[in-house]
Amino acid sequence: MINYPIKRSTSKVKAKTTANRGMNFELMINKSNEFFRDNNIAIIYKKPIPIQIVGVDYLKRSAARITEAYYKLPSTTDYNGVYKGRYIDFEAKETKSKTSFPIKNIHEHQIIHLNRCREHGGISFVIIYFSSLEKIFFLDSEKMDFFYQRSLTDKKSISLEEFEEFAYPIKEGYSKPVDYISVIDEYYLK
Amino acid sequence: MINYPIKRSTSKVKAKTTANRGMNFELMINKSNEFFRDNNIAIIYKKPIPIQIVGVDYLKRSAARITEAYYKLPSTTDYNGVYKGRYIDFEAKETKSKTSFPIKNIHEHQIIHLNRCREHGGISFVIIYFSSLEKIFFLDSEKMDFFYQRSLTDKKSISLEEFEEFAYPIKEGYSKPVDYISVIDEYYLK
Repeated sequence: MINYPIKRSTSKVKAKTTANRGMNFELMINKSNEFFRDNNIAIIYKKPIPIQIVGVDYLKRSAARITEAYYKLPSTTDYNGVYKGRYIDFEAKETKSKTSFPIKNIHEHQIIHLNRCREHGGISFVIIYFSSLEKIFFLDSEKMDFFYQRSLTDKKSISLEEFEEFAYPIKEGYSKPVDYISVIDEYYLK
Repeated sequence: MINYPIKRSTSKVKAKTTANRGMNFELMINKSNEFFRDNNIAIIYKKPIPIQIVGVDYLKRSAARITEAYYKLPSTTDYNGVYKGRYIDFEAKETKSKTSFPIKNIHEHQIIHLNRCREHGGISFVIIYFSSLEKIFFLDSEKMDFFYQRSLTDKKSISLEEFEEFAYPIKEGYSKPVDYISVIDEYYLK
């Protein structure tokens, strides 16, 4: 086996300059939330995945082993927390499409939940990542609801052009891969 | 076997008048949150239990079966959401003691989380249910932190008298078994 130290180090440098290319979107959001928490900017967490537990083995008191469980449909969204006293709630989705986002990727009860959070004074939205284009959009829940309602009788997706027109672009960065807080600062709290 | 219909119906009436006696405390909180949501008062949910998934059987695409998983220590609290635009965050605990609440029932990282939520403008607190006394208390996170800090060098519990002095009593009710919203209205939003 021959090692190619020069080539390898080159590819490492490349990986750094394109920051988050190929990074799992959920990891990008989690890393951003960690940055916001570590720097005392906002306290936002991903909720655990809802699980229906059916069987448990109590071998030791300290280490119960779940032996049978199933994924449940989430009744709310994945992320929530607090920023500058405001309640924050959002769902994040990724698409490989270069032209549109299929609305079926977001459940109806999540749309309802986002609407209710907004009606109660929270800031609620969806974050859509077009991974093939490396573009990230912040779409307010009221606009998301508009496209959802339209999908019931008409177009089943939101086109890239519609995102460009109705959503806010989210900047990518190394320490904050998905900086949705800047969007909130600029469009909600100014 | 002989039936005692009169006695039985008497005990049923009794059970109704003592409303929530014997009801699991988590169910009491969940029922209250359901009431607040159904009546469009507040949008507050219990978070799913955090689970570390180790093994999954993909028999069918639609029904993946988790075959090995373990409970994880929660990094935050059990309940959060939005009320009148404010971020709400709390932990709820039950004790059978008639004299005090052992602080070890709340993890250090939960105390830290509650402090951070308050510092970021949220309303954060713990709800303690003395089930043997049928008394429920609402203790602000700042006071909870005071007792937690004290427990590191001194008393490991909060006495009932201290709750009577420093916490707010929560009224029990049939449709809202744990009406913490009234406390928020009276002491935080007035």
